[in-house]
Amino acid sequence: MEVTRTFAETREKYRGRVGLLPTLGFFHEGHLRLMDMLRERCDTLVVSLFVNPTQFNDPADFDAYPRDEERDAGLAAEHGVDLFFAPDVDEVYGGVSVTTVEVSGVTVEMEGKHRPGHFVGVATVVAKLFAGLRPDMAMFGRKDAQQLAVLKAMTSDLRFPIEIVEAPVVREPDGLALSSRNVRLSREDREVALAISRGLFQAAEQVDAGERRGDRLESTVSRAIRHLDVDYVQLAAVDTMQPVPDLSAPAVLAVAARVGPVRLIDNVIFDFVDDKPVPDRGIFLDEPSSLTRLQ
Amino acid sequence: MEVTRTFAETREKYRGRVGLLPTLGFFHEGHLRLMDMLRERCDTLVVSLFVNPTQFNDPADFDAYPRDEERDAGLAAEHGVDLFFAPDVDEVYGGVSVTTVEVSGVTVEMEGKHRPGHFVGVATVVAKLFAGLRPDMAMFGRKDAQQLAVLKAMTSDLRFPIEIVEAPVVREPDGLALSSRNVRLSREDREVALAISRGLFQAAEQVDAGERRGDRLESTVSRAIRHLDVDYVQLAAVDTMQPVPDLSAPAVLAVAARVGPVRLIDNVIFDFVDDKPVPDRGIFLDEPSSLTRLQ
Repeated sequence: MEVTRTFAETREKYRGRVGLLPTLGFFHEGHLRLMDMLRERCDTLVVSLFVNPTQFNDPADFDAYPRDEERDAGLAAEHGVDLFFAPDVDEVYGGVSVTTVEVSGVTVEMEGKHRPGHFVGVATVVAKLFAGLRPDMAMFGRKDAQQLAVLKAMTSDLRFPIEIVEAPVVREPDGLALSSRNVRLSREDREVALAISRGLFQAAEQVDAGERRGDRLESTVSRAIRHLDVDYVQLAAVDTMQPVPDLSAPAVLAVAARVGPVRLIDNVIFDFVDDKPVPDRGIFLDEPSSLTRLQ
Repeated sequence: MEVTRTFAETREKYRGRVGLLPTLGFFHEGHLRLMDMLRERCDTLVVSLFVNPTQFNDPADFDAYPRDEERDAGLAAEHGVDLFFAPDVDEVYGGVSVTTVEVSGVTVEMEGKHRPGHFVGVATVVAKLFAGLRPDMAMFGRKDAQQLAVLKAMTSDLRFPIEIVEAPVVREPDGLALSSRNVRLSREDREVALAISRGLFQAAEQVDAGERRGDRLESTVSRAIRHLDVDYVQLAAVDTMQPVPDLSAPAVLAVAARVGPVRLIDNVIFDFVDDKPVPDRGIFLDEPSSLTRLQ
């Protein structure tokens, strides 16, 4: 594995089909699973590590975001990464820096309401990675379902010839969705946070049993997490991210809530197979994550 | 030469270094000179023809914009173009179409003030061409000096590995800058329009004689075109497009004015050589253009 610092030197090292996994670093088993999945699909596997300042609407969150490049590089090397692209802020934002990529519609609800400016930062930095790295494919996780929808729209709209590969949510054996932010949860917070996935799975069971009404599914989740500081519980169309009253086409049941010092998001996406919704609960680790707990 | 309709089929036909000349079509000798210049620099010469609706702030201007694809394809073939990319609106804007590329600062003055929304349309469509065609270089004319500055900023900011090649203004033997819109000028309008280039050249002579004060240079031009319907006469920094009080660094003396039914723009860019401003008056045709007069 080689560590690269510039777009140009990264591009020079390609051979064959290039797959990109953009990350904010501080890898956990979820990132590692995604690397393994993308490794199968491409000849050159590029993982980028860049804690993008423009997508943090809250400077305190940016400051608190965990960072450990050396640890991340070691984990990437163990998982078959060819190029570990870790640019500094100047490589990504240096120069005149007057350009933003703005996505409307799909950015309005949910995260868009609670994190003003977030998606401009995300769309802009990913457009830079796509323009500057020219990969053939890029992988994003379903955990950030709205981000995924925003980036699919951006990629398609700007005509980047880049295949977007969707990766499932990766979960602890008990259901908690993996997140680099979990490292900041106390043991007690962690227990409380379990209510989120538990509520989502209860709603998924209702769907399996025939429920299609959005308010019923949202109520199930809201009840489960009534003790948390909830930003939203929303059923939304999976492509437009607009609220929908019932489950008649692919949709996401999405949650954002605060537990202790940490804001967590999670969701279940309902794909449609033979006109029937099929909940994607994600994949479960066999053993508890060791990388999202403070050592 | 091959005519292509999609981004994908265009990319498939590349060999070696790819040069792109984006155009709105209805070619005149200015376009043909640019094709000849870019032909020298690349292995595959791509000319795109797309009358981009989103950059016309005035729908009447969009409707009146002259179009003749067959004629353009013939001229391109005569000038060594390999790929003539003429997509329909759906190839460029079909799909969700919620993404725009926004450039701040450099878009505020001059054309930005008089053509609201224009530069969002320009930056977005060129970002699509760059993302979807992945050329190695692209050529833009100095005639649209602010557009050139906007696109240089956008290209650099988004980290497209695309060299921007600047082409000089191409002029009639009497000085009138070539424009596809000139075809809509009557013989009388054409005579009146000559005041624009005449005023710019007078200012350039003052600079050659030592004048550096912006207001003096602007006054010279304003006096020359006092009978026209003037949008602006402005000395501005060539990279930021912000007004400057004097000529102490690379700058553009830019004009926009209406003559009859047509809005015309023209400029002289002052490059700096050995700390001295050198006016770029452009290049002059040996014989009057036959392609910008109604046949």
